[in-house]
Amino acid sequence: MYEGPIQDLIDELGRLPGVGPKGAQRIAFHILQADKADVERLAHTLREVTEKVRFCEVCFNISEADTCRVCRDPRRDRSAICVVEESKDVMAVERTHEFRGLYHVLGGAISPIDNIGPADLRIRELCTRLADAQVTEVIIATDPNLEGEATATFLSRLLIPMGVTVSRLASGLPVGGDLEYADEVTLGRAFQGRRQLTA
Amino acid sequence: MYEGPIQDLIDELGRLPGVGPKGAQRIAFHILQADKADVERLAHTLREVTEKVRFCEVCFNISEADTCRVCRDPRRDRSAICVVEESKDVMAVERTHEFRGLYHVLGGAISPIDNIGPADLRIRELCTRLADAQVTEVIIATDPNLEGEATATFLSRLLIPMGVTVSRLASGLPVGGDLEYADEVTLGRAFQGRRQLTA
Repeated sequence: MYEGPIQDLIDELGRLPGVGPKGAQRIAFHILQADKADVERLAHTLREVTEKVRFCEVCFNISEADTCRVCRDPRRDRSAICVVEESKDVMAVERTHEFRGLYHVLGGAISPIDNIGPADLRIRELCTRLADAQVTEVIIATDPNLEGEATATFLSRLLIPMGVTVSRLASGLPVGGDLEYADEVTLGRAFQGRRQLTA
Repeated sequence: MYEGPIQDLIDELGRLPGVGPKGAQRIAFHILQADKADVERLAHTLREVTEKVRFCEVCFNISEADTCRVCRDPRRDRSAICVVEESKDVMAVERTHEFRGLYHVLGGAISPIDNIGPADLRIRELCTRLADAQVTEVIIATDPNLEGEATATFLSRLLIPMGVTVSRLASGLPVGGDLEYADEVTLGRAFQGRRQLTA
């Protein structure tokens, strides 16, 4: 074990996700040799995040203001809402440049094992938003795993009777992947979702 | 790209060694959801390290005081010095509980490619320490790579004429390893260093 502050730092870094004991030691020694100004900036941004970042009042995406950049943008299509689990997923969809509507961040997925039910997610807030007649389509973009699928099923049963078009992102083979290495479920989905080609 | 502080934090984290863009994003979102007190503690330890950690005046190991814990310890054997490249290596040797002497941290290894010559390392300070008649053995524990070997050769040529016993850590097969997967150089070294067994 190291002495005092350096061991404290290794311990603190080791608590971060994806940082093991060796990685924490490596980062700590990097910081020890780094410019004081750089370290100060890192410490400052850490504090800034806890102090300044809030959640959008409309869609619950992370935001600096009361409403997030997407909700504030007048060029976005207000008739479509893409429902995602986390703020990270908003960024993933944004990077595709395929969607010009608004988002709704649920804050997780239905997971009985983790004791997360529909009441723990921002589903009521989504229903309130749908009461606005402008919204005509909801695209469910929860993760393609057990919890995400359960959430998608729950949401579709809830939302379809409200008179909006509800869709789910396509499952299938990842682009650039190899058919040989695709798992059975993904390959099965790719068959189910096959699209007819036209000449 | 995210808004303001969260993107700043992702950028800062991404500069740390071993943290890629995905890892930085993951840590940033972890911090966003973490307890304010935990984040405060991490920011505090970062500052503490740059402010409080210094280098031992004798062996250049990291230390909180003028001399490090090893140099201060009256139970350590003052006749042997283990020469290592970095403070991290001191910890690695300490964990073996095989060595009860003192250390000397060079601060790197000779590497013409990186423009690091003997004058850039703490070799003069090592010679000053050897002037003390108490020291009778120097164990060179630089890394078993090109730079470490070059440094070991340079040091042995310099130190042997000074009348101390100079040794180098053994190279050979790693314990728990597999002969089949050992590289030729390591296996060759293991042959050269073979030890006779006695009944």
